[in-house]
Amino acid sequence: MVRSPQLPSWRPGPTRDAIVDFLSRADDVEPERRVAVFDNDGTLWCEKPRYVQLDFLIHELSATVETRPELAAVAEYAAVLSDDRASIAAIGLERIALALVDLFTGLDPDTFDARVRHFLATADHPALGVPYRQTVYQPMLELLDALRARDFGTYIVTGGGTEFVRAISRGLYGVEPEGVVGTLVTYEVVRTDGRLRLVRTNRVHGEVNEGEAKAANLQLALGRRPIFAAGNSSGDAAMLEFATAADGPTMAMLIDHDDAEREYAYAGEAATFEAEEPITATAERLGWTVVSMARDWERVFPGVPSDR
Amino acid sequence: MVRSPQLPSWRPGPTRDAIVDFLSRADDVEPERRVAVFDNDGTLWCEKPRYVQLDFLIHELSATVETRPELAAVAEYAAVLSDDRASIAAIGLERIALALVDLFTGLDPDTFDARVRHFLATADHPALGVPYRQTVYQPMLELLDALRARDFGTYIVTGGGTEFVRAISRGLYGVEPEGVVGTLVTYEVVRTDGRLRLVRTNRVHGEVNEGEAKAANLQLALGRRPIFAAGNSSGDAAMLEFATAADGPTMAMLIDHDDAEREYAYAGEAATFEAEEPITATAERLGWTVVSMARDWERVFPGVPSDR
Repeated sequence: MVRSPQLPSWRPGPTRDAIVDFLSRADDVEPERRVAVFDNDGTLWCEKPRYVQLDFLIHELSATVETRPELAAVAEYAAVLSDDRASIAAIGLERIALALVDLFTGLDPDTFDARVRHFLATADHPALGVPYRQTVYQPMLELLDALRARDFGTYIVTGGGTEFVRAISRGLYGVEPEGVVGTLVTYEVVRTDGRLRLVRTNRVHGEVNEGEAKAANLQLALGRRPIFAAGNSSGDAAMLEFATAADGPTMAMLIDHDDAEREYAYAGEAATFEAEEPITATAERLGWTVVSMARDWERVFPGVPSDR
Repeated sequence: MVRSPQLPSWRPGPTRDAIVDFLSRADDVEPERRVAVFDNDGTLWCEKPRYVQLDFLIHELSATVETRPELAAVAEYAAVLSDDRASIAAIGLERIALALVDLFTGLDPDTFDARVRHFLATADHPALGVPYRQTVYQPMLELLDALRARDFGTYIVTGGGTEFVRAISRGLYGVEPEGVVGTLVTYEVVRTDGRLRLVRTNRVHGEVNEGEAKAANLQLALGRRPIFAAGNSSGDAAMLEFATAADGPTMAMLIDHDDAEREYAYAGEAATFEAEEPITATAERLGWTVVSMARDWERVFPGVPSDR
């Protein structure tokens, strides 16, 4: 007899009922098929006003420019440092992102890992008044625990940098590094004083992990098919469709950011990532479980009183 | 107090002492840095007279040709079916391998997985007189257990097909699918009757997982650095060098196939995979622990008496 899931931050209602029902039905699924995947930004933690990883990259850029001031003249960096939206849009986010990733070319994985951890240990969210590490969603932590209590493997499938998320996934979510599937940067093998080392390059390995690539990349990385998937944007849609196309009990969960008071309100605002409709419309059309932050969550962040 | 490792199939002597010493020193390593990687063919199970995966591919080719006899005229397939060494050499193993992989183009991962499992459940080794699944090395199973008892994560880093090894890694070795790093084939995302599906292609994803690629790919796939690595060929050398370049206690283990009576004798025979020396010479030069099958293993295979 498995005990009822502990979901104290989820308010009673249809959404909580749907989770409890899915967990109960999953008891009939073979344990090795109990696989749950989660997007990260906007699904497991706050992604506004900008991605935490972008804030990290800007922080690293500012620190680098102090010792290498000539970098401030590079168009991509100048646009970011001056927060010039028009220039950023003209250059394009992809070129900006690659230029920022290039700041780490030549670093070994451990050094990159240490920089991310240091940032997360010290940086605060610009508006919420708490450290970034406290902008994880308490209800989602409880959901991760409830899934694990039913012998689910829990994995993160993020559009962000794999190594960035791996540096923090164990501490924030209890997910091991090999359980993180994201956008990878290739390594080069070099020998220094006869010792074999890996150093980062500025080249993406495979495809950026967004949209249909999320379904293909999670198969490549994990060799498992999810029967549960959670996301918050059109870039997650294919992954959620992939989960619900599995045999037996499945669940697709969309986090609807509709809580301007406690977090942000934006999920249904517009079509994104090549989609033809807002993601909330996709969710309704395909029968996904939509989580209304405002309605379904008793508290949003850990350690923040429910009546905030 | 951790108890002594249980290694009953390892004979007392310097090799066993080196393992016990490494395990003891690893107690001082942070648990998340306790990472052990193993090559598969020739390290965890028998790879002679030919790779098990190659035997599987030939089996699948024979079955396919029964319903599609025109395939027997394809040069790559004809060479394999007639076991014509000269033709195989002229065509090249890489082209042969890709042609065989192409037999599965369009299959979904679950179907491929089921075919591998069926083969392993039924196929026998052509010379040893036992099922393939019993050609795993008993001493290495004990080593895997001893590492796990010290909280090591254990992973497989194979030159073979990732999905092939994943289909059997849990049953044979207790390694989960996401713990297998090998050569990947890309997937295509397709929609059939509105359902999102993944189907195999005939294109390799990234690099074939051999040589220096093993070091880079294990970082990409696992996000962890090994402090223990075991292999048996020059294609494993970079991975073993990578492990020993880590800080703190490390161990590189080379399986020397020097036991023509109980298995095969070939490891030191010649330079392979772009190497300029036999792998046993590399091991001596770099101070790796060399496992002599003939001398160090009391028994080779599970269920086979030691006096065989």
